[in-house]
Amino acid sequence: MVVTGQTHSNQASQFDLKGYLAVRQQQVETALDRAFPVVYPDKIYEAMRYSLFAGGKRLRPVLCLATCDLLGGTTDMAMPTACALEMIHTMSLIHDDLPAMDNDDYRRGKLTNHKVFGEAVAILAGDGLLAYAFEHIVEETKNVPSDRLIKVVSRLGRAVGAAGLVGGQVVDLDCEGKKDVSLDTLNFIHTHKTAALLEASVVSGGILAGGSDSDIQRLSRYAQAIGLAFQIVDDLLDITSTQEELGKSIGKDMNVEKATYPRLLGMEESRRQAEQLVESAKAEVAGFGEVAFPLMAIAEYITARKN
Amino acid sequence: MVVTGQTHSNQASQFDLKGYLAVRQQQVETALDRAFPVVYPDKIYEAMRYSLFAGGKRLRPVLCLATCDLLGGTTDMAMPTACALEMIHTMSLIHDDLPAMDNDDYRRGKLTNHKVFGEAVAILAGDGLLAYAFEHIVEETKNVPSDRLIKVVSRLGRAVGAAGLVGGQVVDLDCEGKKDVSLDTLNFIHTHKTAALLEASVVSGGILAGGSDSDIQRLSRYAQAIGLAFQIVDDLLDITSTQEELGKSIGKDMNVEKATYPRLLGMEESRRQAEQLVESAKAEVAGFGEVAFPLMAIAEYITARKN
Repeated sequence: MVVTGQTHSNQASQFDLKGYLAVRQQQVETALDRAFPVVYPDKIYEAMRYSLFAGGKRLRPVLCLATCDLLGGTTDMAMPTACALEMIHTMSLIHDDLPAMDNDDYRRGKLTNHKVFGEAVAILAGDGLLAYAFEHIVEETKNVPSDRLIKVVSRLGRAVGAAGLVGGQVVDLDCEGKKDVSLDTLNFIHTHKTAALLEASVVSGGILAGGSDSDIQRLSRYAQAIGLAFQIVDDLLDITSTQEELGKSIGKDMNVEKATYPRLLGMEESRRQAEQLVESAKAEVAGFGEVAFPLMAIAEYITARKN
Repeated sequence: MVVTGQTHSNQASQFDLKGYLAVRQQQVETALDRAFPVVYPDKIYEAMRYSLFAGGKRLRPVLCLATCDLLGGTTDMAMPTACALEMIHTMSLIHDDLPAMDNDDYRRGKLTNHKVFGEAVAILAGDGLLAYAFEHIVEETKNVPSDRLIKVVSRLGRAVGAAGLVGGQVVDLDCEGKKDVSLDTLNFIHTHKTAALLEASVVSGGILAGGSDSDIQRLSRYAQAIGLAFQIVDDLLDITSTQEELGKSIGKDMNVEKATYPRLLGMEESRRQAEQLVESAKAEVAGFGEVAFPLMAIAEYITARKN
């Protein structure tokens, strides 16, 4: 039987994403916990653990595990990189929350790292997480050729640095309070702040599994689409959610004159674009067949999520 | 003719270190400049470049190039790692100078990064340098097997993270203002804050050249000795230098009740220990013969330097 992309898309909607995520998230929790024993000087390990285990959904690790699986790799091959992605994501949250940056006291309903450990330790916890991410990949990954690890290190480095997260955050800070931010600039911010690490998550799983160049490119397009959709939905949620659901101050981005998609495009058009991006993401991976169901379901979840 | 370690030690003293450093430093400047073109968003690249080109002596890159050479490697094999070491070192200086940490307005006679670019950009410039260091090694190193690059990434990651620089800085901040800091704690601070990255510099050059385990261990002992000597001399210079020579406020460490070797051991004993460490460092590498002259001369330079 020839199964078309459309049929797969419908079947993917039936996929038990909740069950899949629960299993994957538990695997990630266990691996992260094992990766961070508390040793002297305890305070820095406690600070890193505080934010690592502050209730993240482990989306980036799960994406990495899912794409490694999709291209025939094992969970073991991808787990150290999956953990490293969460370390890098956590680093970016800790540093973004600092008084000199977004100055947030709460994240996911919990005090931010610097509110608990002080600014100095929070800065160092971020640095420690970032450095350890790279060490962890190359030290803990077994049964993967070194050539692939090198590529993963390169992708992750680029996704975090000035050509990725850091570059996006610099432009974001620059735009704060400005009323004339263009859609191009907003896209730059989010393709760098959010999409770059999501793309690295998706692509690194594929690289670890030994995917072909064309497979990797397909995964990259999937990731770029869900990355941008993710940010648009974040902007929409910031307006529509209750504080309780989101665990942070509502409408904060609207109040500080921050450039957002709803502000530039309106609510309706933003929602339409997010949905279109999710459809194109699903279309990219539908050709892989049933093994792509987790990725397709995750794409759908991004627009359906409530927080 | 059998050349003894003692004879080599004397010959090493005649070695033209000044000329050697001038050539190596120029090679590093050129490579670093090429590694950091200014692209959009310009501000972050300018901030990274500001501190990268603020007059550093390039000790870590030079050590890396020297040990790669010592074990038969080429300058090209080691240069990307040499540059990465300077990026990591610069990151640690930018973050250490922040108001939440040591709160320094000047370094090497120039305004610190956050005084010029603001705290947010300074934090991000550090993050960008750290991430790019790893990317640069794996992207730019040619003609070195991936297995060796993996080892270098691991060593550098450990040297920066909670088991290295970051861990040392946490304990250092914790000790500020305390009068009862033990010699063990002071040694922990400096083997982590200073010696760890010096060791990674020395060892990574050896790994890139394909050194044997016993060669690498020898280089590691050399590096640990000069690392600690370096810090003791730093403490001594803090007391004896004029502000003009050092480019930072003199006696600052004494004023804030900071634990230092002169405070714990006295000036004379500190000087004696630094000299002893330099002798043992030289003895470690004397067996390599003439090719070790740069390393031996660098060890001597550490106690002889005036800033």
